[in-house]
Amino acid sequence: MERPRHQGMAKNTYMRWRLPLVCLLWEAAMIVLFGVFVHFGTEADAHWEEEKREMNLTSDIENDFYFRYPSFQDVHVMIFVGFGFLMTFLKRYGFGAVGFNFLLAAFGIQWALLMQGWFHSFKNGKILIGVENLINADFCVGSVCIAFGAILGKTSPIQLLVMTLFQVTLFSVNEYILLNLLHVKDAGGSMTIHTFGAYFGLTVTRVLYRPNLEQSKDKQGSMYHSDLFAMIGTLYLWMYWPSFNSAISDHGDAQHRSAINTYCSLAACVLTTMAFSSMLQKKGKLDMVHIQNATLAGGVAVGTSAEMMLTPYGALIVGSISGIVSTVGYVYFTPFLESRLHIQDTCGIHNLHAMPGLIGGIVGAITAAAATEDVYGKEGFIKAFDFTGAYQTRTPSIQGGFQAAGIVVSLLMAFAGGAIVGGILKLPIWGDAAAENCFEDDVYWEV
Amino acid sequence: MERPRHQGMAKNTYMRWRLPLVCLLWEAAMIVLFGVFVHFGTEADAHWEEEKREMNLTSDIENDFYFRYPSFQDVHVMIFVGFGFLMTFLKRYGFGAVGFNFLLAAFGIQWALLMQGWFHSFKNGKILIGVENLINADFCVGSVCIAFGAILGKTSPIQLLVMTLFQVTLFSVNEYILLNLLHVKDAGGSMTIHTFGAYFGLTVTRVLYRPNLEQSKDKQGSMYHSDLFAMIGTLYLWMYWPSFNSAISDHGDAQHRSAINTYCSLAACVLTTMAFSSMLQKKGKLDMVHIQNATLAGGVAVGTSAEMMLTPYGALIVGSISGIVSTVGYVYFTPFLESRLHIQDTCGIHNLHAMPGLIGGIVGAITAAAATEDVYGKEGFIKAFDFTGAYQTRTPSIQGGFQAAGIVVSLLMAFAGGAIVGGILKLPIWGDAAAENCFEDDVYWEV
Amino acid sequence: MERPRHQGMAKNTYMRWRLPLVCLLWEAAMIVLFGVFVHFGTEADAHWEEEKREMNLTSDIENDFYFRYPSFQDVHVMIFVGFGFLMTFLKRYGFGAVGFNFLLAAFGIQWALLMQGWFHSFKNGKILIGVENLINADFCVGSVCIAFGAILGKTSPIQLLVMTLFQVTLFSVNEYILLNLLHVKDAGGSMTIHTFGAYFGLTVTRVLYRPNLEQSKDKQGSMYHSDLFAMIGTLYLWMYWPSFNSAISDHGDAQHRSAINTYCSLAACVLTTMAFSSMLQKKGKLDMVHIQNATLAGGVAVGTSAEMMLTPYGALIVGSISGIVSTVGYVYFTPFLESRLHIQDTCGIHNLHAMPGLIGGIVGAITAAAATEDVYGKEGFIKAFDFTGAYQTRTPSIQGGFQAAGIVVSLLMAFAGGAIVGGILKLPIWGDAAAENCFEDDVYWEV
Repeated sequence: MERPRHQGMAKNTYMRWRLPLVCLLWEAAMIVLFGVFVHFGTEADAHWEEEKREMNLTSDIENDFYFRYPSFQDVHVMIFVGFGFLMTFLKRYGFGAVGFNFLLAAFGIQWALLMQGWFHSFKNGKILIGVENLINADFCVGSVCIAFGAILGKTSPIQLLVMTLFQVTLFSVNEYILLNLLHVKDAGGSMTIHTFGAYFGLTVTRVLYRPNLEQSKDKQGSMYHSDLFAMIGTLYLWMYWPSFNSAISDHGDAQHRSAINTYCSLAACVLTTMAFSSMLQKKGKLDMVHIQNATLAGGVAVGTSAEMMLTPYGALIVGSISGIVSTVGYVYFTPFLESRLHIQDTCGIHNLHAMPGLIGGIVGAITAAAATEDVYGKEGFIKAFDFTGAYQTRTPSIQGGFQAAGIVVSLLMAFAGGAIVGGILKLPIWGDAAAENCFEDDVYWEV
Repeated sequence: MERPRHQGMAKNTYMRWRLPLVCLLWEAAMIVLFGVFVHFGTEADAHWEEEKREMNLTSDIENDFYFRYPSFQDVHVMIFVGFGFLMTFLKRYGFGAVGFNFLLAAFGIQWALLMQGWFHSFKNGKILIGVENLINADFCVGSVCIAFGAILGKTSPIQLLVMTLFQVTLFSVNEYILLNLLHVKDAGGSMTIHTFGAYFGLTVTRVLYRPNLEQSKDKQGSMYHSDLFAMIGTLYLWMYWPSFNSAISDHGDAQHRSAINTYCSLAACVLTTMAFSSMLQKKGKLDMVHIQNATLAGGVAVGTSAEMMLTPYGALIVGSISGIVSTVGYVYFTPFLESRLHIQDTCGIHNLHAMPGLIGGIVGAITAAAATEDVYGKEGFIKAFDFTGAYQTRTPSIQGGFQAAGIVVSLLMAFAGGAIVGGILKLPIWGDAAAENCFEDDVYWEV
Repeated sequence: MERPRHQGMAKNTYMRWRLPLVCLLWEAAMIVLFGVFVHFGTEADAHWEEEKREMNLTSDIENDFYFRYPSFQDVHVMIFVGFGFLMTFLKRYGFGAVGFNFLLAAFGIQWALLMQGWFHSFKNGKILIGVENLINADFCVGSVCIAFGAILGKTSPIQLLVMTLFQVTLFSVNEYILLNLLHVKDAGGSMTIHTFGAYFGLTVTRVLYRPNLEQSKDKQGSMYHSDLFAMIGTLYLWMYWPSFNSAISDHGDAQHRSAINTYCSLAACVLTTMAFSSMLQKKGKLDMVHIQNATLAGGVAVGTSAEMMLTPYGALIVGSISGIVSTVGYVYFTPFLESRLHIQDTCGIHNLHAMPGLIGGIVGAITAAAATEDVYGKEGFIKAFDFTGAYQTRTPSIQGGFQAAGIVVSLLMAFAGGAIVGGILKLPIWGDAAAENCFEDDVYWEV
C-alpha cells in the first residue's frame, strides 16, 4: 500500500517552536550586541559637518556614500534577487529557494556587521559602520548563499541559520587572515567569498550525504517557468557583477577598472558557455542549467584580479576559460562528484563557484606577480597593492606568493570548517526532511 | 440553471468610451498645466553653466542629479515593479495588479509634479523641477499604490484614476501641513505616505464594502507561480527601501545614516516575521503572505526616524517589533476587520502600512524628542531638524510634540478624505465589476 | 497521417558543431583584437593618480565613473533583462527570447567596443576604453536587440550571431556618419539606435519572409504567465529609460534634463496607450501587447531631444502622440505589413521602435532648429549643440537640417544593410527551423 506522502515523513519537520525560538533569540542577541558595539561611522554620523571641516572637505559629495552606494545596491540585489531567484529552478522549491535565502541573508548581514566590524572597524570599543560595511556584510553573506546552493532542498531553515552563524564567523576569520595577515588583495572575493564559500558548502553537503536521495529525483528537475524565474537570478547576477567586483575597490581608477575587466570577462564567458553547452550534448541543444550558471563563472574568475591591470584582453581570456571549465564541470564533474565522492551538489556550486574561484585566485596571484611600475605608474603601483608601511618592501613576486597562500588558507578553512559545521548540522534535532520529501516546498511552507 | 459567468455580470464594466475619455482628457489637462507652469529647475536648465559660476561651484558633480539620481531610480523601481508585482499574488489578477498600478502611477506622478510643485517649488509663477521633484512625485504616488492594495481586484481602472486624482491632491495638502506648517521631519514618509495612504485606502474600501464578496472567494487566493511573481515585488521593495528612506534626506551624513538605519531595521524584521509566521500557524509552516508583506514593515516603521540618530541598535528594535505586529495583524486583525468592521483589505495594507506607519510616526516623535546636541553635534543638531529661521527656538521635546501632531493630522486627513473619495467612487458610473467577477482579469483585459 | 513534430523538421537545425565553432572562433578573434587594440582609458588606468595631478583634479569623484556608472548599470539591465524578458511573451519561446538575447548581446558588446572604439576612442594605435564606451557598446547592441524582435522565433542562434556581427558594424558606420560627419545630436539614439535598428530588422525579416508561417500560428500567442514575464521586461525598460537617454549626455544639466524629459514623456505615453488600447477593441478591454510595448514609445520618441530644452510640457506632448501612434500601429499596421508587404514582425518593432524612432528624429530636428540663445543661455547654447571649432558658425536651423539628414541616412543604411544581411541570412547553411517549428524552444533547447 502506498503511504500518503506527508504522513510518510519519517522525520520530524515540525518547526513551530524551534524556528521561532532560534529566530527570536538570535535577533535578541543581535539587538544586545548592536547596542553595545555598533555606532555610525563618521560619514554617517550627525557630527559629519565638523568632520568635514577637520578633513578639509569642501563638499558633501566627498562622503563615501556617493562613491559606493550605487554599487552597494547592485550587490544587495545580487544577494537577495540574484541568488534567491537563481535557485528557483527546482519545480517545487521556489518558496524555499527565495524564502530561505531571504531568511539566512537577513540574519547573516547582521552577524557579519558584527564579526567583520570587530576585525576591521573597531575603534575605542565601538564598531563604526558605513556603506562599505554594508557591502562587506552582503559579500560575507554571499558566501553563505553559495554554500546554500549545495544543500538546497535538503535542509531545514534552522540548519541554514545554524550554518549561517558558523560560516559568517569562519568567513570573517579567514578574511582577516587573508587581508590583514597575508596582506592579500581580493576585492571581488574569488578566494574569500567563492573558493571559501563553495568548498565549505561542498564539505557540508558531503557530511550530510543522503544515500537515498534518488527517492526525490522526480522533484530535482526544473520546469519551463521555473527555469525562467531562475534566469531572472542569472541575469541580475551577470549584469551587476561589475558592481560586485568594484564595490570596495579604491576610489577612482580602481573601481573604474574593476568594472571594465568584469564586464569583459562576463561577456566572453557567455560565448564559451554556449559553445560548450551545445558541443557536449549529443543533439547539440543548449541546456538551461549551463546558461543559468556557467555564464557567471567569468565574474567569479576575475574577482581577485579585476582591480589590477588585468587588461580587457586578459579578462576575455579568463572569462573564456572559466566558461568552458564551468560547463564541462556541469556535464562531467557533477555526476562524478555525486557517484564517486558522495558530494550531492544541488546547484552545481562546484562548477560555478569552486573551480572558477580557484581560477580567480590563481589569476590574481599571477597578475600581482607580473605587476610592474611601468604598467601601474610609480604611485599607482604602491596604491594598487597598498605597498606602504610594513609592506613597502614587498615585491610583486612576493605578493604573488602571498596571494597563492591565500588560496591555500581559504581551502583549509573551508574543509575544516565545513567538516565541523556539517557534523553539527547532522545532529538529529534540526528538523530536516526525509529523503523522499526533499526538494518539496510543502514541508516547510503553506502551499 | 447556472449562468455563464460573463454574461452574468450584473454591472456594466464596458470601458470602451469611458476609460479613453478619462485618460485623454486628463492627459490633455496635464499638457496644458505643464505648459503654463512647469519649467526646468536651475540644475536641469541649460543656463546651469552660468548658475555654476554664480554659486561658485567648481564641478558638475555638485549638481543634485549626482546626489539623488541613483536613489531616484531605486524608488522608481519600487513604485512600478515593487508595488506592481507585490500585488500579482492573486491567481487571476496579475494583469490588473501590474497594469493598473502602472496606469495610476503614470498619471499620478504627473499630477503630483504639479500639486507638490505648487506647494514647494513655485517661484515667479513657475514650478521649477529637478530630480528631487521626481522622487517626491514617486513618493506621493506610493501612497496611492498603498491604497490600491486595499481595493485591489474590486475596482475599475476609472475608479483608480479618480481615486488617484483626489488622493494625490489630499496627499499634497497633508504633506504641506506637516512639512511646512508643523515643520515636521518625515523623509521616508511614515506619516505622509504610509499612515495617510493606508488609512485613506482602508476608509475607501470600507465605504465600498461588498457584502457578497465571498462569491469570488475562490479567486482571492494565490497559486504557486503567482506567489513567486509577488516575491519579485517584495524583494525589490525590501532591497531598495534604504534608498527610499534616504532619497530626499540632506546631502551627506543624513542620506548615509538613513540607508544604514533602514538596512538594519529591515534585516531584523525578516527574522521576527519568519518567527511569528511559523509560530502562529498550527503546523508551524511559513505563510508566503507574511513573507511577502510583513518583512517590509521594518522599512515603513523607520520612515520618519531613519535620517535621525536612531542608531543601528534602535533600528533593529523597531524592525523587530514591526515584523511581529505586522504578522500578527495578518493572522488576527485582517479577519477581524473584515468580519466586524466590514473593511475588506485585499493586500492587508493595514498590517503592512497602517500599523507600521503609526509605529514609524511614533518612533520618529520619540527619536526627535530625545535628540541632544551631544549626540548630533551643535551644527548637526540644527541641520538635522532644520532649527533655523522661525524654528531656531524649537526644542527637541517641542519637535516631538509636533511630530506626534503630524500623525494625528495624517489620520484625520485620511479618514475624511477616504470617506469623501469613497463616496464618489460609489457612484454607479465608474464601471466596477459585480462581486462574482472581482479578482478576475478578463473583466478589463483581453486574456 | 500526422508526422511526429520533430521528425517532421524539413530543415537541419542541428547546432552541435556549427554553433560552437562560430562562438569559439569569434571569441578567439575578439581576444586577439582586444590584445592588439584595447587599453584602459586614463580614468581606468593605474596611472590615474598622475593624470589627476596633471588635470588639476582634487578628488577621485571627478572620475567619469561616478558621473555615469549608475546610468550604465540601468542601461545594462535594459539590454539584458529589459529586451530579454520583453520578448518572453511567446508561450513556448521564453528560453530563446532570454537566452539568444543574452548570447547576441554578449557577443555584440565586445565587437561594439572594437568598432566604436576605432571610430571614436582611437589614440596612437590603441582604443582607450572607459565607462562611456561600455554604455555605447550596450547602446549599439540595443539596436540589435530591436532587430531581433522582428525575427524572434524564426531564426537560429547562428543567424543571430551573424546578424549581430554585421549590424554592429553598420551601426558604427552610421553612428560615425551622424555624430562626426553630420555633427548631429542623438544621445538617446532615436535615429542611431531605434530608427536604424528597427528598419534594419524589418528589412531583414522581409527578406526572410516565410509564406507558411501560419503553420506555427498556435505558438505565436502568449499565455497568462508569459505575459507577466514580459511585463518584467516592459517595466525595466520603462523605468530605466530616463537613464538610457541621459547616460551619455554632457555632465551636469544635460544629464539632469534628459532624465526629466524622458520621465515626463513616458508617463504621458502610458495614458494614451491605455486609452487607445481600450478604444480600438470592440469590447473595450485592454490588450497586454499594447501595454507591454506602446507604453515605451515615449522613451524612444524623445531619444534625440531629451537632452535639449524640450521642456516637460513638450515631452508630455511627444509622449502622448507616440503612445497613440504605437498602439494604432499594433492594431492596424502590423496586420497590414504582414499581409500586404510580407513583413512578419514578431514583436511589432515597427510600432515600438520604427515609427517612434522617426518621431524622435523629427522632434529632435525641430527642437534643435527652434533653439535660441535666450532659452539656452549663451554658454549653454554652445555647449548643448557643441557649436565649437569647425561648427561654431552653425545656426539652429542649419543644425535642424543636419538632424533631418541624419534620419534619412539612418533609413538608407538600414534598408541597404538589412537587404544585404537578410540575403546572407537566407543562405541555407545557418540552421534555422522550418515554418512549423518556429516559436518553439525545443528546437534549440533541452526542454
